[in-house]
Amino acid sequence: MKLEPSVWFDEVVKTYQIISPHIHHTQLVTCPDLNEELEGRFLFKPESLQITGSFKVRGALSAISRLSKDELERGVIAYSSGNHAQGVAHAAKVFNTPATVVMPEDAPARKIANARELGAEVIFYNRRTESREEISRAIAKEKNLVIINPYDALETIFGQGTAAYEVIHDANNPKLDNAIICAGGGGLTAGSCISIKHINPQCNVYTAEPEEWNDHQLSFEKKERVAMDTNRGGLCDGLLTPTPGEIPFAINQHFGVSGLAASDEMVCNAMSFAFNRLNLKLEPSGAVALACLLANKEKFKGSRTLIMLSGGNVDEETFATCLAKATAH
Amino acid sequence: MKLEPSVWFDEVVKTYQIISPHIHHTQLVTCPDLNEELEGRFLFKPESLQITGSFKVRGALSAISRLSKDELERGVIAYSSGNHAQGVAHAAKVFNTPATVVMPEDAPARKIANARELGAEVIFYNRRTESREEISRAIAKEKNLVIINPYDALETIFGQGTAAYEVIHDANNPKLDNAIICAGGGGLTAGSCISIKHINPQCNVYTAEPEEWNDHQLSFEKKERVAMDTNRGGLCDGLLTPTPGEIPFAINQHFGVSGLAASDEMVCNAMSFAFNRLNLKLEPSGAVALACLLANKEKFKGSRTLIMLSGGNVDEETFATCLAKATAH
Repeated sequence: MKLEPSVWFDEVVKTYQIISPHIHHTQLVTCPDLNEELEGRFLFKPESLQITGSFKVRGALSAISRLSKDELERGVIAYSSGNHAQGVAHAAKVFNTPATVVMPEDAPARKIANARELGAEVIFYNRRTESREEISRAIAKEKNLVIINPYDALETIFGQGTAAYEVIHDANNPKLDNAIICAGGGGLTAGSCISIKHINPQCNVYTAEPEEWNDHQLSFEKKERVAMDTNRGGLCDGLLTPTPGEIPFAINQHFGVSGLAASDEMVCNAMSFAFNRLNLKLEPSGAVALACLLANKEKFKGSRTLIMLSGGNVDEETFATCLAKATAH
Repeated sequence: MKLEPSVWFDEVVKTYQIISPHIHHTQLVTCPDLNEELEGRFLFKPESLQITGSFKVRGALSAISRLSKDELERGVIAYSSGNHAQGVAHAAKVFNTPATVVMPEDAPARKIANARELGAEVIFYNRRTESREEISRAIAKEKNLVIINPYDALETIFGQGTAAYEVIHDANNPKLDNAIICAGGGGLTAGSCISIKHINPQCNVYTAEPEEWNDHQLSFEKKERVAMDTNRGGLCDGLLTPTPGEIPFAINQHFGVSGLAASDEMVCNAMSFAFNRLNLKLEPSGAVALACLLANKEKFKGSRTLIMLSGGNVDEETFATCLAKATAH
């Protein structure tokens, strides 16, 4: 699919019409005392409450909805740390096609269990020594499956863009000064840009990343895609991509996105803030955008800012450990 | 305010128009694998994500919105285990009137802190030895304040009814076979009945209570208000009312409500289910309706059922203790 920027927004709207019967319309949440403290208006979009617990199902539904009858009969395959896997499993069920998902051995147990409960076949790989792309391509070739790309495809990006589209729709075309969007491959940021910039061309859009996995931030600064060492883990298991996706990076550059990053401590603080002040359960990756807000309060003071809370799938034990590490909320 | 049943629904609609700019429109959530397991459709209304973390703000806004200019200048007072206190504090702020709240000494720290952060003056009482009604009446008389009743007033009930009204609105007048609504004083159940029965006169509405605080269940069975021993605590701090409110009970009887109850263990299981399967943080009282569903799966199999998740304000420590006690999720 090759499309010009001029039709991107229409594609998001079209996608939303197709996928909206199969997703939750997640509710915008605000925190009155934070609004007061920062003398602004901070809109939280809790995609942790989305079907399958993250925004990823939007992109999966978008991509799978575009498959031919023949492709649907053959089946789909996806590689994912977990949320895209669940999204693909759910979307495959909606469109009645078999799903295979390739997940890292150290993915959270809850994400693995959920993908299986949704009927997907799970195949594991070692994130430190194996390439999930290669494994997926090999299986796809062998079994004649369609790969559902987690972020580096326009079809997926249009689906992710429906989250911000809902915000614009709900808030009746709100004036937004800023939007903070977590970035693994960058698909959610790219999709969000398409929706937000259509209404708010002046809005500053920021990627939010863990400090030690800030490939988008570094790439924006260098004006080219930077690759990072993958031979290590990280608290934010959904954001451990070594480099921005090619298409998302091009879109994000097109829209002038810049990068923010937060420490693990701030991510834990953000999880605690969400739990105690918003009654929301967020996974570490899902709390990074909030962490970047809390770490940069002065920067965002007095503004109208959208904060994407991208997912909530985390084991009880990890969640408790993060809350125990929080130093403020 | 004395009104005939025929105008109750119109009053809820009118109330919704007044209060909707000041509340969150909470999102209906479903759990695909639960729908599949029980071969039905289970709609969860997470009022834990409401402003102030519970539905109580709806009733408080409704009641305070009806006060005269003179009354607003004098100020309001409320007695509450916490959520009504926060609701009144928020509503008082919206309508620019001073708020005093009378809370039990053993109310969750988070609820006390929130009421104070919202600008209310907090006065404590001992739930085992003192009457909060008497204390409130004495202060109200001394300071010439208006008492905002937590459930035993039509104005409050019409506000609580807006939660179910939103469900009807969102789901485009859905056919509901059942609705399970937690009951302390019974105001949320009464308000929900008004909204639901208008569209679904055949819908079975159930109160949900802790097994040891099942005054509504006993009262429905005896066809009169039963009073319980108050000299004890309970896990569900929001539902420890000794007897159903007079007006809610009359409304609930009018609509043929019956009672369900769940053990503390089932409440903990429900909190765990909500946390792990829906990414929702619920307080024990907010999980009772879900506990009643999970404890009566056969009864609700194959049905379309609304489950009201009424609030989420609980300390981290209590939350962790409950999850540790859960035996299933």
